[in-house]
Amino acid sequence: MAGNTFGQLFKLTTFGESHGVAIGGVIDGCPPGVLLDEKFIEKEMSRRKPSNSIASSKRCETDTIEFISGVYQQTTTGTPLAFMIRNADCNSNDYTNLKNVFRPSHADYTYSLKYGIRDYRGGGRSSARETAARVAAGAIAKLILHQYNIKITAFTSAIGDIKIKQHYTELNFKSIDKDPLYCPDKSSSLKMQQLISRIQKEKDSIGGIATCFVQNCPLGLGEPVFDKLQADLAKAMLSIPAAKGFEYGEGFYSSQLKGSENNDLFEKKNKKIILSTNHSGGIQGGISNGEDIYFNVAFKPIASIGKTQKTVDVDGNAISLSIKGRHDICAVPRAVPVVEAMTALVLTDHLLRYKTCK
Amino acid sequence: MAGNTFGQLFKLTTFGESHGVAIGGVIDGCPPGVLLDEKFIEKEMSRRKPSNSIASSKRCETDTIEFISGVYQQTTTGTPLAFMIRNADCNSNDYTNLKNVFRPSHADYTYSLKYGIRDYRGGGRSSARETAARVAAGAIAKLILHQYNIKITAFTSAIGDIKIKQHYTELNFKSIDKDPLYCPDKSSSLKMQQLISRIQKEKDSIGGIATCFVQNCPLGLGEPVFDKLQADLAKAMLSIPAAKGFEYGEGFYSSQLKGSENNDLFEKKNKKIILSTNHSGGIQGGISNGEDIYFNVAFKPIASIGKTQKTVDVDGNAISLSIKGRHDICAVPRAVPVVEAMTALVLTDHLLRYKTCK
Amino acid sequence: MAGNTFGQLFKLTTFGESHGVAIGGVIDGCPPGVLLDEKFIEKEMSRRKPSNSIASSKRCETDTIEFISGVYQQTTTGTPLAFMIRNADCNSNDYTNLKNVFRPSHADYTYSLKYGIRDYRGGGRSSARETAARVAAGAIAKLILHQYNIKITAFTSAIGDIKIKQHYTELNFKSIDKDPLYCPDKSSSLKMQQLISRIQKEKDSIGGIATCFVQNCPLGLGEPVFDKLQADLAKAMLSIPAAKGFEYGEGFYSSQLKGSENNDLFEKKNKKIILSTNHSGGIQGGISNGEDIYFNVAFKPIASIGKTQKTVDVDGNAISLSIKGRHDICAVPRAVPVVEAMTALVLTDHLLRYKTCK
Amino acid sequence: MAGNTFGQLFKLTTFGESHGVAIGGVIDGCPPGVLLDEKFIEKEMSRRKPSNSIASSKRCETDTIEFISGVYQQTTTGTPLAFMIRNADCNSNDYTNLKNVFRPSHADYTYSLKYGIRDYRGGGRSSARETAARVAAGAIAKLILHQYNIKITAFTSAIGDIKIKQHYTELNFKSIDKDPLYCPDKSSSLKMQQLISRIQKEKDSIGGIATCFVQNCPLGLGEPVFDKLQADLAKAMLSIPAAKGFEYGEGFYSSQLKGSENNDLFEKKNKKIILSTNHSGGIQGGISNGEDIYFNVAFKPIASIGKTQKTVDVDGNAISLSIKGRHDICAVPRAVPVVEAMTALVLTDHLLRYKTCK
Repeated sequence: MAGNTFGQLFKLTTFGESHGVAIGGVIDGCPPGVLLDEKFIEKEMSRRKPSNSIASSKRCETDTIEFISGVYQQTTTGTPLAFMIRNADCNSNDYTNLKNVFRPSHADYTYSLKYGIRDYRGGGRSSARETAARVAAGAIAKLILHQYNIKITAFTSAIGDIKIKQHYTELNFKSIDKDPLYCPDKSSSLKMQQLISRIQKEKDSIGGIATCFVQNCPLGLGEPVFDKLQADLAKAMLSIPAAKGFEYGEGFYSSQLKGSENNDLFEKKNKKIILSTNHSGGIQGGISNGEDIYFNVAFKPIASIGKTQKTVDVDGNAISLSIKGRHDICAVPRAVPVVEAMTALVLTDHLLRYKTCK
Repeated sequence: MAGNTFGQLFKLTTFGESHGVAIGGVIDGCPPGVLLDEKFIEKEMSRRKPSNSIASSKRCETDTIEFISGVYQQTTTGTPLAFMIRNADCNSNDYTNLKNVFRPSHADYTYSLKYGIRDYRGGGRSSARETAARVAAGAIAKLILHQYNIKITAFTSAIGDIKIKQHYTELNFKSIDKDPLYCPDKSSSLKMQQLISRIQKEKDSIGGIATCFVQNCPLGLGEPVFDKLQADLAKAMLSIPAAKGFEYGEGFYSSQLKGSENNDLFEKKNKKIILSTNHSGGIQGGISNGEDIYFNVAFKPIASIGKTQKTVDVDGNAISLSIKGRHDICAVPRAVPVVEAMTALVLTDHLLRYKTCK
Repeated sequence: MAGNTFGQLFKLTTFGESHGVAIGGVIDGCPPGVLLDEKFIEKEMSRRKPSNSIASSKRCETDTIEFISGVYQQTTTGTPLAFMIRNADCNSNDYTNLKNVFRPSHADYTYSLKYGIRDYRGGGRSSARETAARVAAGAIAKLILHQYNIKITAFTSAIGDIKIKQHYTELNFKSIDKDPLYCPDKSSSLKMQQLISRIQKEKDSIGGIATCFVQNCPLGLGEPVFDKLQADLAKAMLSIPAAKGFEYGEGFYSSQLKGSENNDLFEKKNKKIILSTNHSGGIQGGISNGEDIYFNVAFKPIASIGKTQKTVDVDGNAISLSIKGRHDICAVPRAVPVVEAMTALVLTDHLLRYKTCK
Repeated sequence: MAGNTFGQLFKLTTFGESHGVAIGGVIDGCPPGVLLDEKFIEKEMSRRKPSNSIASSKRCETDTIEFISGVYQQTTTGTPLAFMIRNADCNSNDYTNLKNVFRPSHADYTYSLKYGIRDYRGGGRSSARETAARVAAGAIAKLILHQYNIKITAFTSAIGDIKIKQHYTELNFKSIDKDPLYCPDKSSSLKMQQLISRIQKEKDSIGGIATCFVQNCPLGLGEPVFDKLQADLAKAMLSIPAAKGFEYGEGFYSSQLKGSENNDLFEKKNKKIILSTNHSGGIQGGISNGEDIYFNVAFKPIASIGKTQKTVDVDGNAISLSIKGRHDICAVPRAVPVVEAMTALVLTDHLLRYKTCK
C-alpha cells in the first residue's frame, strides 16, 4: 500500500519524478469558493525555487504551476484541484554515471531493492524536487488559513553549530524573506553564510534546524488519541527529505524540567481565561489551545557531496565517488518553505476535521 | 473526523475512558493463523501496569485482557480481534474536586472547549490509561514480528539531567526487565532512582527520554513520500501522552554534522553489500535498509503534581491547586512498553503494506 | 486489508462471531452532545430481534446493548462509542455436525479456503447475527438524523411472487411495526404469511424484496465522482447478508424508458423551484436533491433449509444434508431494520462529509 | 470530504472537467514491474471513445493518454502513476445558452446548490467524459489481472424493451468488439439499432442494461463484512453516470426463488470439490468462490434530449428547452468499457488486499 497521499479531508496526492515530464499533485477536498490568488502562489513557489539561496543548487526551474482542473474563473469549485509543474532544466546526462552506483545515504539502495526497478535520473521520485508540489499545495492551504487569520512562519534557526540564541518571540520577522537563508537574526545569518562558504570549499555539506511558529490558530484542532495535532505535525515534518527530528514546545529540553517548571498556569485577564506561559507549544492533550504553536525540525547534512567517498557500485565493487552536478550545501533554507507548506496542510486538514465534530 | 484508529492495514481502534467500564480495542486486519501466546501477552501487559515502578502511581489494576472476538482455539481467524480491559480500581471520588478545575498542562481545558462535554473522572479519554490498549495490541503485533525474528527494545535513557552516556550498541540488555526504571545501565539507574525520590519529596515531577532500537528489520518497510517509515514512527511516538519530541539516527545532532561525517558508506563483506556505519538509523529515503532502526522520544514532566499551583477554576476564579490522588513522578518507565508497542504497530502495518507492492 | 469498518467520518467497526462472547461495535466520529435515548435504541433493537416474526428463527436473545465508552451522563462525548451485545442463547452443539460440512450457498467454503481457519459455530463471523451491531449503530445514527427531521422507512414489498402493487407514496405506514412482516399492505401481508407457512412446511425458504424511502433528506449529500450517494447506498445494501440487488428511483425499469418519460422537470411553485416528478429517486449527479430517496433491495432465499440437499463434506465425500436448528424462512422481514440502519449510517456519514465542503 | 478516489490499495484519484484543459488520474499503489502495453491501453481507450457507436455523440476526441510519472522504460516503478487526456474538441460556446438553465435530470441543480459555483461548460465535472480516466486506469488494472489470467467481459444485454434472451454462458463473444453496440447476439443487435434510429428521430433517448462476467477469478477476493466483493462492485457500478441498478447472480429474480432452487450444491469431480450450479454469481459470504462472477447494471435514458421540455431557468422562469449539441442516444454501449474498467479496478484492489491476509 503506497503512501503518496497526505491528509484525511484536505487530501494531497503528489506525483512525479525529478527528471520526468513534470511533478504535480491533486488536492481532493479543497472547499469550493477559494479565490486562487496567483501572485501569492507564485511568490510561495519562488521561495522554494532552486538557486534562490547561496546554500542551494543551480538548477534553473521556472516552477510555473499549471492548473489542470478544479478551478473556474480563478475560484475553486469543490472538484479535484490538479496541478503540474514541468521539469524544464533537467540534464539527465549528469546522472548517467550514477546509474550503477548506490550513492551513500541516498535512497538509491532502498528503492532499488524494494521496487526492483529505479528511475535513477536525478534521484527519481526520492528527489527533493517533489517538495515543489508540496509548496504549491501548501500555498492553496495558506489561502484557506488566511480566511481564519492563521499565520505560519518558518525560519532557519541553526546551521551546523551556528544557532540563533533568542526565542522566536524575541525576533523580528519583517525582512525575513530578504535574507538569503531565511534567518531573522542578521548576525547569525552572516555567520551561517560564512560557514556555508567554508563548507562549500571543502566540497562538503552541513546540517541545520528549521523553527516554525503558528499564530492565531483557533482552539480545537487535533483528534486524539492517535491523530493528535502534534502527531500529525511530526509525521508531516519527518516526511520531508533529510529531516531527522521533531520537537514542539520545550521539546527535548522538557525532558530535563520539573512539572512545576514546565506547567502552563491558567489566569484570568480581561474576564478571559488565558495561559501565563506557553511551554506546551500551543497544544494540550493533542488539541490546539489557542496559543502559538511552535516546533523545531532537524535536518541532516545533504548526502550528495563533491568530496570523494569510498563506497561500492551496484555490484559491490569498491569505487571512489565524487558527486558532480548541482547540489545544495545545506537543506534548511530551501526546507523552510516546505516546513511551512506541510504545516499549512496539517492545519487545513484539521480545520476541516474540526467541522465534523460540531 | 475523529482519530482513534492507528494503522492502514493492521488497524487498531481503541476505546474507553479512565473511569468507565473498560478500555479496549479492535484490531481489524490481523492476519489469520497467529497463535495468541497468552503468557507473552500477559507479560507485556504487566510491564506497563501501574505500581510496578518506583516512578509510578499506586493504582491497582489487574489489567487482564478479555478477548471478545476474532480468536478461535487460541488462534486468530482473520476477523476483527476485539479485546477489553476492565477498569477495576477506579475511585472516581478522588476526582470530584477536579470537576470544575482546568488542571494546568492537562487536556481538561481543550477537551471541554472542543467537545462541550467532558468526562472529568480520572482524565476520561485523555488519561494515560488508554495506553494499556496500545500495549495489548502491540503484544499481538509483536507475535507477528517474532515470525520474522524482528526484535524491539525500548529503555529509559535519561531522567532529568541523568543520562546514559553510552550508545545503545554498547549496553547490555539482558536484565533490563528487572530494573525498576527499564534502564540498562545500573549506575545511571541508581542515580535516576535517587533523583525520583528527591522529586517525589518535592511533590514535583520530572521529564526524561526513552530510546528504542529495532533489530532484524527487513529491508523495504516504509512508503514514500508521505508514509515514510520515520514519518509513521514519529506520528506513533508523538501520539503517546506527554511525548514532546522524536529523533532517529543521529537526530538533532546531525544538524551539526557535515555530510562527510554523517554519510553511511557501502562496503562489500562476505560477498554482500553492507553499510560500514549507521548514522542514518536504519532508514534511507523513508525505507528500512536492513540495519538497526533506533530513535529517541522525549517526555515532558508529568503535569499532575502535588506541589501547589496558582491557577483558575472553570469560571476563571483564582485558586490554589494541589493535585492529590495517584500520579506518576516520571512518565518514561511506564512509557517504555508503550514506545515498544507503538513501534510494533508501525512495523506490523508496514510489513503488511510491503506485501502489496510485490 | 480487512473490511470491517463502514463510513468515512461516522465510522462503524463491528466485531464478533455468532457463538462467541459477544458481538458489538465501535463508532469513531459520533459528534459530541447526542442524547442517547435508551428507549428508542431498545425499540430499534427489538425490531430486528430473532423470533419476533413468523418468518424468523427461534433463537432467544435479549439483545441488550451495553455501552462501554464514549457516553457520559447519557450523552455522547465525542470519544469512541463502544458497545457490546452478549450472545446468550447459543447452543453450539447444534452445529457440531456441521463442523466438517460446507453448507451449500453459505460462507463456509470461502471462509475456510480464504483464512485457513473457521469458527464454524453458528456461521461464526458470517452469521446474520452480526447485523445486530449494525442496527445498534444505526439507532444512534437515527438519533442524529432526527435532529434534521430526516425519516427512514423500510418495509417488505415482496416475498416470492407476492408483491405490493402500489407505489410507496400510496401506502399507509402508520401500523407497519405491528405487521409481523413489516408489510404496510394488509392483504399482501396475509398472502405473504400464507406463502411463508407453505414454504415452512416444505422445509424450504423463499426470497423477497425490501423497499426503503427517506423523507426530508436535505439537498447536498453525496460526493462525486466515486462516493455518490447512490454508490454508497448500493455498497451498504449489498453488504447485508443475502442481498443480491439494489436499484434506486425507477431502477431497472428505467432501462426501458425514454428520456422524455424518465426526466424530472423543474417547475416554480410558491416562489420555489421544485421537481414535478421524482423518477430520479431523490439523487441527481450523485447528490441528494431534496426529494424523497427511495430504493429496492433484493434478497435471495435463506441458504439454510431443512429439505435434504445432496452435497459434499470438507473432504469431498457425497452426503445428504438436512440443516436442523433455528433458521429464518425469509430474510426480508428481519432485513428491514438492517436496511434502515445501513441507510442511517450512509446518511449520517454524508451529513458529516457535507460539513467539510462549506 | 470529497470522494474522487476509488480503491484502498490500488487507488485511483481522477480529476478534470469536460471542457477544462484535460481530464486524468493518479494511481497510487500500482505494483512495480508492470509492463505498460501501449497498444492494449490505446485499444481500450478507443472502445470508449465518442463517435465509435451509432448510439453515441459526435464529439471528436483522440483520447491519447500522456503518462506523466510512475513509468520508466515502459514499466511501472511503484511510484504514483499520473496520466492525462487532453480535451481537444470542446466547443464551449455550445453550452453558453445552458449557463442559466438547470437541465432536467442532470447534475446542474445539485452541483450549483451544493458547491455554490459550477463550471457549466459541457457539464463540467459531472460529464461522462470523466469516465475516460476510469477506462485508462482500468486498462492498467487489466494488465495486472492478465498476469492471473482473469478475464472481464461486459456487453449490452438490453436496450429499451429489446433484450437478449440467452444466458451469457450460451453466447459467443468472439466478434463482440465489431458490433456497434457491443451486443454479442446479432439479431438482438439489429433490433436495438433499429430502436435507436427510431428514438433518435424522436429526438429522445432510451435506457438499457449492461451485463458483465468475470472468468478465472481466484477464490478469496472480498473482505467481509462491509467490503464484500459484491458490495464494492455495487458501489463501483452505481458510481457510473446514469447507472440506476445493480444485481449479481440471480439478482432480483432470486427474490422469487426458493432455497432449494437457488442453492448451489457442491459435488466432487476429478478429485476436486466443485459447484454444480452458479446461481450465486461467483461470490459467497462476500468472497469470490472461483466460479464466474456475473452481474447486470441498469442505465436510465440519457437526460439530454433534443425533444422540447418545459422546465425553468436558474431564476425559476418557465422556459421551453431543447438541448442541442452532441449527445448519446443510449448510455449502454459507451458504458460497456466503463463497466469493465470499474470491475478491473475492484478486482485489482481486492487482489492486493488479499495478499495482506496471508
